[in-house]
Amino acid sequence: MTTIQDIADKMGISKSTVSKALNDAPDISENLRKQVLETAVALDYTKLRRYKNTVKKICVLVEKENIEYEEPNHFAYDIIMGFRQSAEPAGFEVEIVPVNSVLQINTQYDVFMLEHGYAGSFALGFSLNAPWLKDFKNSRTPAVLFDNYVIGNPAAAYVGIDNDEGMELALTHLTNLGHRNIAYLSGSLGSYVLQMRHASFLRAMHRHGLRTAFANTGCSYHIFECTEKYLPKFLEAGMTAVICSHDNIALAAIIKCQQLGYKVPEDISIIGFDDLPASAYTSPPLTTVKQDRVELGKSGFFALSSLLNDIPISTFLLHAKLIKRKSTANICLNKRSNIL
Amino acid sequence: MTTIQDIADKMGISKSTVSKALNDAPDISENLRKQVLETAVALDYTKLRRYKNTVKKICVLVEKENIEYEEPNHFAYDIIMGFRQSAEPAGFEVEIVPVNSVLQINTQYDVFMLEHGYAGSFALGFSLNAPWLKDFKNSRTPAVLFDNYVIGNPAAAYVGIDNDEGMELALTHLTNLGHRNIAYLSGSLGSYVLQMRHASFLRAMHRHGLRTAFANTGCSYHIFECTEKYLPKFLEAGMTAVICSHDNIALAAIIKCQQLGYKVPEDISIIGFDDLPASAYTSPPLTTVKQDRVELGKSGFFALSSLLNDIPISTFLLHAKLIKRKSTANICLNKRSNIL
Repeated sequence: MTTIQDIADKMGISKSTVSKALNDAPDISENLRKQVLETAVALDYTKLRRYKNTVKKICVLVEKENIEYEEPNHFAYDIIMGFRQSAEPAGFEVEIVPVNSVLQINTQYDVFMLEHGYAGSFALGFSLNAPWLKDFKNSRTPAVLFDNYVIGNPAAAYVGIDNDEGMELALTHLTNLGHRNIAYLSGSLGSYVLQMRHASFLRAMHRHGLRTAFANTGCSYHIFECTEKYLPKFLEAGMTAVICSHDNIALAAIIKCQQLGYKVPEDISIIGFDDLPASAYTSPPLTTVKQDRVELGKSGFFALSSLLNDIPISTFLLHAKLIKRKSTANICLNKRSNIL
Repeated sequence: MTTIQDIADKMGISKSTVSKALNDAPDISENLRKQVLETAVALDYTKLRRYKNTVKKICVLVEKENIEYEEPNHFAYDIIMGFRQSAEPAGFEVEIVPVNSVLQINTQYDVFMLEHGYAGSFALGFSLNAPWLKDFKNSRTPAVLFDNYVIGNPAAAYVGIDNDEGMELALTHLTNLGHRNIAYLSGSLGSYVLQMRHASFLRAMHRHGLRTAFANTGCSYHIFECTEKYLPKFLEAGMTAVICSHDNIALAAIIKCQQLGYKVPEDISIIGFDDLPASAYTSPPLTTVKQDRVELGKSGFFALSSLLNDIPISTFLLHAKLIKRKSTANICLNKRSNIL
């Protein structure tokens, strides 16, 4: 196992300087401290530090631009709650750490974790171009990625819901209601999970023997663009149902349809993904694929604690569940279908 | 909750007859007993029975034609051991139940489980055309499927290793050794996991920018056909490495190459999947993608116990690991590559 002496030897500095740098002594320059930490990580010194802590500190890393978590009605609020509900009784101290791109570019993930004494992380909201997503491919400090997957790193695991199943449930529901012309409206494909759902939609349509034209799927980072640019096209093309990649888009789509003079669900059925707290109270209440977020948070801790105990979890998916409310209806009740 | 009276009402027979049938009384005909069980399952009587048991009985179902488990060197031996190592200390009684197609055709899965008082199962070795694989799509008694996935059943979960990762590790190893002409030899694609590995191979080749011709993959249920029919073609076509879907094929491939006058790894590199106990002692020892089978068994119990506690696990994958031994070598050491 790597010792402080090994780090000192490698850098050609004294053992006490290394020790001071690792313990944040004030007479060590920021630059030197960073070099020591990077060398420590390169020599796999992480583990030693981790075993030394009596109370283990772990963190939830949140890319704030992509995921909201501070209010009870925010998507990640319950995920973090579930994580803490499992982690804290197990003796872990959990810190919630918002991270932006600047931090990620300036500090390597492993270095950041060592620097703050975190034994492992649960990472929420990282887009595909987030700098640390590259780090996670080779990082050595356990990381559980919510809705992200990296291949070939035994210190990383993926936690989420079964998107294939969620899409199958949504599509089966619509086809049982008689729908055949079904469109898909998605947020940016710069996110792993939205890429997955997009692919799941295409696979599910294929499984049900339904045609998917390029014109019947639309993706944009901006919800406004999704509804303004794509929805009118879908309606003109005779689509009778729209599956949305997440509830926020579905809620905007309901409003836009109503503005355009279409009734939901009489003229067009709309399904979301997530089951946000607000989705039960929209007009009409939203039919959506539920992600059990408290359970996802608990699963996140289970996966992290497994990685910390050298149990090599790669992927942990929960079942999706369709919540049928009032934004979907039988195509027989659908006036437009008589015209088409 | 369904009572014995409900079953009696539904069938138009007396409550005591139902009770006798459920308790295997000798004065009830086999035919009537079966009808009662099937009605009980249809009315969701399973749960009641399950809560009544003080010691919970669960089972490992094994389709014997497809998977060996009785000897320490058999593939599933350690999986079952890992499962029992977790289940028995948790207070479960585990029974190992070999099942064949006849049993599966004659008795519905849920009925079988109710009949024997099993709260849940860990199912090993079921091929895609196994009769119960259809049952698992709608079954209500928790079932954890090793290396099988059914979509949309909240009472079923899939446990296995991350095949995409395993294939990526194998291919990265070969490309790092300079190989470009890489073939794939597989067992029957009538199994879910071998379909997955086949798809993983094609994806990994694509990711590495390598060409896969139809002629460079071969699949057969019979190992003999794999080695006799496909290996000579691969060698003639200038392949310098072969990835095999599992160790038994890889071991047969090594022998066949040697019979044909090719040295392993000097003339051709061979990689397996599984890391069977024998694979370390072949000549040369086999480079292979390891499945940690004890850990897979433990994961199987974790998933089953989660389903029994209404935690909706869908998919639980462990990391794959490449074990580098002597059946792969740098293409520079490869005499044939000079000729090609």
